[in-house]
Amino acid sequence: MWVPVAAGRRGLTVAIAAAAAGLALAMAALRWRRRPVREVLFFPSQPSCTEALLAEAAGPGAPVQPCPCPLPRSDCSLSRLLRRLLSARRSLDICLFAFSCPQLGLAVRLLHRRGVRVRVVTDAQYMALRGSQIGLLRLAGIQVRHDQGHGYMHHKFAIVDRRMLITGSLNWTTQAIQTNRENVLVVEDAEYVKLYLDEFERIWEEYSPTTNSSLSQGQ
Amino acid sequence: MWVPVAAGRRGLTVAIAAAAAGLALAMAALRWRRRPVREVLFFPSQPSCTEALLAEAAGPGAPVQPCPCPLPRSDCSLSRLLRRLLSARRSLDICLFAFSCPQLGLAVRLLHRRGVRVRVVTDAQYMALRGSQIGLLRLAGIQVRHDQGHGYMHHKFAIVDRRMLITGSLNWTTQAIQTNRENVLVVEDAEYVKLYLDEFERIWEEYSPTTNSSLSQGQ
Repeated sequence: MWVPVAAGRRGLTVAIAAAAAGLALAMAALRWRRRPVREVLFFPSQPSCTEALLAEAAGPGAPVQPCPCPLPRSDCSLSRLLRRLLSARRSLDICLFAFSCPQLGLAVRLLHRRGVRVRVVTDAQYMALRGSQIGLLRLAGIQVRHDQGHGYMHHKFAIVDRRMLITGSLNWTTQAIQTNRENVLVVEDAEYVKLYLDEFERIWEEYSPTTNSSLSQGQ
Repeated sequence: MWVPVAAGRRGLTVAIAAAAAGLALAMAALRWRRRPVREVLFFPSQPSCTEALLAEAAGPGAPVQPCPCPLPRSDCSLSRLLRRLLSARRSLDICLFAFSCPQLGLAVRLLHRRGVRVRVVTDAQYMALRGSQIGLLRLAGIQVRHDQGHGYMHHKFAIVDRRMLITGSLNWTTQAIQTNRENVLVVEDAEYVKLYLDEFERIWEEYSPTTNSSLSQGQ
């Protein structure tokens, strides 16, 4: 059987056009896939009221009282950090030298109350200082482990839902948030998350009361 | 003119094969492009001797004396951090709360001697402590600026050649490197580098002696 050359060429053109369209579609699909979070927060954070954000996170059953404070409700580095943490649905692993910021402490307790599995690793020396949130976290039933020995447990990172890494120079203290020059990098990146999660698990096991009988644990 | 159907089909097959080969080549080229640096260093660093690394960085004219110390010459987090810094060819911008590690101080001075434009921003309170490297950097002619006022300049990041970001919890002190639990994230990523570089420039200008007459500057 014979067909005209023109028809053969037309078939070729159609095939190439179809391949190009398929490639364009695949590339568009890649572009439209939700872009992973990539954010950097710099501190000091502008003063702003986070009460509404925390009340909203407490859920529909919680009483909502308009905050009478004069601070603006605008977006700031602290509110952005709170939102990233409050996005947790399944787990929150925190590895933090100093934790005394009441708003961040409340956010972590709200997550625990919502059923998120919260684990905290902290520094033994700092957690004993006045104003530390660690006692309140333990009272709420959150698992806390701490170092024992030389040096500081000086990390300042958290992992949300085993998918988002929050890391930087910031201790979660009011002084650091309101006064210091600090940075926090937020990234959804499987490679980085795995490395930090592995470090978290190493420390979690090392500081386990069953591994080291001189350590205490929240529950 | 007429050609057999078989010949038309053959042409189509050849064209598709050529397109597929082209696509495969393009993908291979993408894979073979130098992969941007993505590294995480955890501390404490294993004890190891970094003398050979620093002697090599001092250049061919520098005297090489075998180090008599008993420490292993193996790779460790400190040597990896040193290598990343010593890869600088044009610029090194450092924004660091505490800087007292002699090896890192020597590396920064070597870079300055090699003609790399080094700028350092640090915390006024910490730089005054004994063991700080800041005095040696200034003596070597490196530009140093520091904060003046409330709060700490608590950042711990550096930018190599305006292309590689080094950031984390680590202050560049021997205590932190040898004893603490710390992390350092190294990333070649234009988006992150720009954000941190902008922060560096903001601080550099803010701490300028011409902006604030109460501040001093190395040169």
